Amino acid sequence: MAGNSFGRVFTVTSFGESHGPALGCVVDGCPPGLPLTESDLQTDVDRRRPGTSQYTSQRRESDTVRILSGVFEGRTTGTPIGLLVENEDQRSRDYEKIKDRFRPGHADYTYVQKYGFRDYRGGGRSSARETVMRVAAGAIARKYLHERVGVRIHGYLAQLGPIVLEPVDPASAYGNPFFCPDPGRLKELEAFIWNLREAGDSIGARVTVKADGVPPGWGEPVFERLDADLASAMMGINAVKGVEIGAGFKAVEQRGSQNRDEMTPQGFRSNHAGGVLGGISSGQQIVVSIALKPTSSITVPGDPIDVHGRPAGIVTTGRHDPCVGMRATPIAEAMLALVLMDHYLRHRGQCADVAATTPILPAGVP
Amino acid sequence: MAGNSFGRVFTVTSFGESHGPALGCVVDGCPPGLPLTESDLQTDVDRRRPGTSQYTSQRRESDTVRILSGVFEGRTTGTPIGLLVENEDQRSRDYEKIKDRFRPGHADYTYVQKYGFRDYRGGGRSSARETVMRVAAGAIARKYLHERVGVRIHGYLAQLGPIVLEPVDPASAYGNPFFCPDPGRLKELEAFIWNLREAGDSIGARVTVKADGVPPGWGEPVFERLDADLASAMMGINAVKGVEIGAGFKAVEQRGSQNRDEMTPQGFRSNHAGGVLGGISSGQQIVVSIALKPTSSITVPGDPIDVHGRPAGIVTTGRHDPCVGMRATPIAEAMLALVLMDHYLRHRGQCADVAATTPILPAGVP
Amino acid sequence: MAGNSFGRVFTVTSFGESHGPALGCVVDGCPPGLPLTESDLQTDVDRRRPGTSQYTSQRRESDTVRILSGVFEGRTTGTPIGLLVENEDQRSRDYEKIKDRFRPGHADYTYVQKYGFRDYRGGGRSSARETVMRVAAGAIARKYLHERVGVRIHGYLAQLGPIVLEPVDPASAYGNPFFCPDPGRLKELEAFIWNLREAGDSIGARVTVKADGVPPGWGEPVFERLDADLASAMMGINAVKGVEIGAGFKAVEQRGSQNRDEMTPQGFRSNHAGGVLGGISSGQQIVVSIALKPTSSITVPGDPIDVHGRPAGIVTTGRHDPCVGMRATPIAEAMLALVLMDHYLRHRGQCADVAATTPILPAGVP
Amino acid sequence: MAGNSFGRVFTVTSFGESHGPALGCVVDGCPPGLPLTESDLQTDVDRRRPGTSQYTSQRRESDTVRILSGVFEGRTTGTPIGLLVENEDQRSRDYEKIKDRFRPGHADYTYVQKYGFRDYRGGGRSSARETVMRVAAGAIARKYLHERVGVRIHGYLAQLGPIVLEPVDPASAYGNPFFCPDPGRLKELEAFIWNLREAGDSIGARVTVKADGVPPGWGEPVFERLDADLASAMMGINAVKGVEIGAGFKAVEQRGSQNRDEMTPQGFRSNHAGGVLGGISSGQQIVVSIALKPTSSITVPGDPIDVHGRPAGIVTTGRHDPCVGMRATPIAEAMLALVLMDHYLRHRGQCADVAATTPILPAGVP
Repeated sequence: MAGNSFGRVFTVTSFGESHGPALGCVVDGCPPGLPLTESDLQTDVDRRRPGTSQYTSQRRESDTVRILSGVFEGRTTGTPIGLLVENEDQRSRDYEKIKDRFRPGHADYTYVQKYGFRDYRGGGRSSARETVMRVAAGAIARKYLHERVGVRIHGYLAQLGPIVLEPVDPASAYGNPFFCPDPGRLKELEAFIWNLREAGDSIGARVTVKADGVPPGWGEPVFERLDADLASAMMGINAVKGVEIGAGFKAVEQRGSQNRDEMTPQGFRSNHAGGVLGGISSGQQIVVSIALKPTSSITVPGDPIDVHGRPAGIVTTGRHDPCVGMRATPIAEAMLALVLMDHYLRHRGQCADVAATTPILPAGVP
Repeated sequence: MAGNSFGRVFTVTSFGESHGPALGCVVDGCPPGLPLTESDLQTDVDRRRPGTSQYTSQRRESDTVRILSGVFEGRTTGTPIGLLVENEDQRSRDYEKIKDRFRPGHADYTYVQKYGFRDYRGGGRSSARETVMRVAAGAIARKYLHERVGVRIHGYLAQLGPIVLEPVDPASAYGNPFFCPDPGRLKELEAFIWNLREAGDSIGARVTVKADGVPPGWGEPVFERLDADLASAMMGINAVKGVEIGAGFKAVEQRGSQNRDEMTPQGFRSNHAGGVLGGISSGQQIVVSIALKPTSSITVPGDPIDVHGRPAGIVTTGRHDPCVGMRATPIAEAMLALVLMDHYLRHRGQCADVAATTPILPAGVP
Repeated sequence: MAGNSFGRVFTVTSFGESHGPALGCVVDGCPPGLPLTESDLQTDVDRRRPGTSQYTSQRRESDTVRILSGVFEGRTTGTPIGLLVENEDQRSRDYEKIKDRFRPGHADYTYVQKYGFRDYRGGGRSSARETVMRVAAGAIARKYLHERVGVRIHGYLAQLGPIVLEPVDPASAYGNPFFCPDPGRLKELEAFIWNLREAGDSIGARVTVKADGVPPGWGEPVFERLDADLASAMMGINAVKGVEIGAGFKAVEQRGSQNRDEMTPQGFRSNHAGGVLGGISSGQQIVVSIALKPTSSITVPGDPIDVHGRPAGIVTTGRHDPCVGMRATPIAEAMLALVLMDHYLRHRGQCADVAATTPILPAGVP
Repeated sequence: MAGNSFGRVFTVTSFGESHGPALGCVVDGCPPGLPLTESDLQTDVDRRRPGTSQYTSQRRESDTVRILSGVFEGRTTGTPIGLLVENEDQRSRDYEKIKDRFRPGHADYTYVQKYGFRDYRGGGRSSARETVMRVAAGAIARKYLHERVGVRIHGYLAQLGPIVLEPVDPASAYGNPFFCPDPGRLKELEAFIWNLREAGDSIGARVTVKADGVPPGWGEPVFERLDADLASAMMGINAVKGVEIGAGFKAVEQRGSQNRDEMTPQGFRSNHAGGVLGGISSGQQIVVSIALKPTSSITVPGDPIDVHGRPAGIVTTGRHDPCVGMRATPIAEAMLALVLMDHYLRHRGQCADVAATTPILPAGVP
């Protein structure tokens, strides 16, 4: 596989460029019999859509997802589900001027070194526009996990630059363009972004995603552990530079007596492990946090080089987000859903006939 | 694959339990013609060996690696390389007393929920003893990368609990049991660990690994990106709870004008990206940092439950490290080597006939 | 992978049903820089198209292939190539009458047992219509292999029922609807098929495909051998029940002194091996033969059962070929191209730096 | 994967050369809780062992299989099962004389072209000795399938050169060195082999393997079909040049009215499909037949070339079977078991929650 497939049993194979005719993916391995319509996917896809607020890229795309196969009479058939989103607003002339230049912080230079040339229109395959298919595919996984297993996934913006946000009201994150879980901090975020825009600059962010209702036993012990696959899923999202499970880097300064999550008949007393022990889900809440770097496409002048390695003035144009992290929540949720779905089916494949010998502990503290 | 294979083209499939007869692995896909002897592997394996200092587990294992196949007349043949390490010091009676109990922070409970029962001797497959095979396999990748491509990998302990270490003299890290890169801080580390031992407690750590000499172009754009595979490789190491590439979580508070690494004809001006742009190596130094949780096996009393979910007193016995992070450096280096080797061969498979069109920039600042 | 991907490094992931909105596939791992247009694919696709002669299914499909990604300014970019064919002539009402019945020799019964229900329109995913994407994907592999490596692939109908055909003029096979390589036998084939049509019956066939110019060294020694992958590729084509490499089943009655292909400085003296020794190409012509069963969709009355397991009269309707083998040649050629391309890239990945030590023998007798 | 792994969910990764220190494999993905001892494996392994009759190679190997991991207190744990067989009778000096020559019909030439050099001792990795691990791994699959699902696998020699054998008494095949299923033909076989030995020549063979009790629904629709995976498994056995499912090449001359297996409430009326329809098991007996070429290692003089491409006299030495097909039955049975086991787990992973809507037909005629 040349890197465009994800998952082992429940797999997503994606294709498409930012300014090509269409983006699409093939979701293979979905269990048959799941009720599924295009609107089931559209809800999640609309949440990551550009142009929906004044704080994000103004590219206009309806992002209408078509199901091309794998669904018959409203139910998944077990055969591959082909999904397609046509690109509509492809102002690729905007990009003529970066054709012969490498933008700093982008994949322009690395693509040319790898492939010999590149589709320079909007970043081509390296554009975050590709994530629309991850969200569409993730919506299938999420629906199955919710309806058949009772898994509930949610996420929110946990930090934007210096502004740290607490999940005061996690459900409210879906009602604002920042995915901010604390309605009281919205004004602060708005002001911060406006100032940034005026400065022609951008900012990093932290996003947290969680899954409740994951039973113990999903994952593998050594290489394709649940946490390793989560790390891969998250680090593979554009602009992500760090991934934490549970306590994450806080564990560096913790003592064992503080970090280990004591088990009692009433459940776990804490969740520093983030729901994964030895690569396998523990039945606690799965907690994953990611760091997103600031958009490199800013109007602050830089002094980049051209494709011949010579200095070349550049001003980034195109339509960009001042904080890509602001739109990452639905993408990270989708990736979490894909990993969990894959591991659910893998676990079922190997261990479906395991007879329970030990009672399942209550999840305990989230 | 049930999770015991790593890599796509250069693959490692491992087996073995902490207290079973032996640990082993199969390294498949190694290019033919590489000079290789058992002593090439032993050097790296010895660096992670237990019982080599008073600060780590006192289990006595010679960890002698045997090459069972894939090498003929001192060179790799291109066929799979079978590696074996026999377990010698298997004091498994020590573990009879935890047979019916779940230790907090360990995989005891999750294994039983997944598989119905568990090999309780020393954690069975969940033991960090399994990493001996990763180091042995990684040594092959490392040797190839060094001799054929000029890639140099090194790592060190970057933080132990509250003690932050700077790479004042990285080469010195291999000369002390802490993998501390600053000889002036050794006394401080020793004192810290002794106090911890007396308290029967343990501590977390941060380890950093780096690769110099990686040419631009290795990696993939979307799912199996170089950074995603690095994240998977590192998060799959026992006790790891966080992974950063380059600036990592520091990027959350950075602005785009600060974070993006400007390119000049003299090379990159900074390396916040950690050597990876858009999932593909940039030719800069690859920089990865990991957070390791404190050992859960401590003598501070806890109040765990037994396999019936009932309260059960426990005192951890066995032979343990007060800080697993102290021994993680060679393991993280090995995983870095495995990821790079796999991506080198993958890149060569797809892009061997790409003709360079753009000069390669100097790496610039590390 | 749930069985809809083919290949390890050069991969094809396909989707689509006979009477759904569209068929498509994702070709991943294609080397960058290959000149490619939609018309390059259309030539091969048109050769397997239904409705092009009176001897085959009268379904009318233009089978127009669209390239949705992975090609920029006329060259492959190295990123996944999305291909799409919209279904046009979907007379799915024809199939209402088989909705509750299992046709003998079809996958109706097995799909229902596997998935719980089925898309009964034209066989759904089990229809040979799916092979249009294999041909489109194969055309990319074929073009690369031809232009970059000098591999030439051709095939022909070797037997139709009792009529055995010799490759008197292999090139002529592309000029008639039977893919018959002996122009002198065309009348005989036509008469045979007309008689069969009148009888409402169908017939089996044998197809042979060959590749010239494959250098020695492609393949693997044990499981994913070149011959094993060819066998998988061919047996995976609808209606195929047997696969032979080289002498195939004739080898059962051969002696070693007759079967082994002697090597001389002038080349191999024979080619009973069909170009594969020990799972690896020998530099001789690759020769693969397949057996295709007769179409099960015939108007000869049968007495099938319904979905409740009860007897149910059936007359097959829909539009069918009296001999599916007649149209299998381009499909088998495509699968041969896909296997060779994948192994070329795999070989290059692992062995690109092998220095030749032994001269390459002339291919010798084909 | 460089070709030494087999299976997707239940996988075998093998290593080892004919005259290296040992052969081994890792069986990954085995469901936990299966009672397993070394003697369970030894029974099958002993059936393929060399030196057990005067008709086969006189190499003396005890072929004692050790289980190194994955089994605890007599049951599989769900973690990888490491298996090892040490080589004992390595008379590798025998092979010094072929060091610089290519034997016709062997992989000597192709290995050198692929890898640049070769382990010439007894064919190295290309030796059929490697199949000992397939048999050991297959024994685990076979045991699980038999005990948990009720699948029964058996095979026999169906043809040796011109002698066609009918399965008069299939169970008797395990009681003679030919795996002949017709005790009345044993004398004839013995005489044939003795004559062949005197002539210093060898002969081809056909072997048939069958599985009863496979429920409908195992397999995949398009690429990794049950029949495609069977074809790959069988063609990957040393010396195999042809594979048939059910009617196989007989289908070429059959009409649809004859070939299609009519379904009735009492079961299928025939089994030309060999138990697979549309890539998925039908519940009928699985029937696979393979053609094995005659051993190329004969004492009939040939005139081979040396590693420089120059003529070089050769007389094959070493210890060989006059008919490799004679010992292929347990190997083909093992591969059948591995494919079925993998597809069972894959099916369970994707479709474990499918509710039966249609009664399962009786298997009908075998």
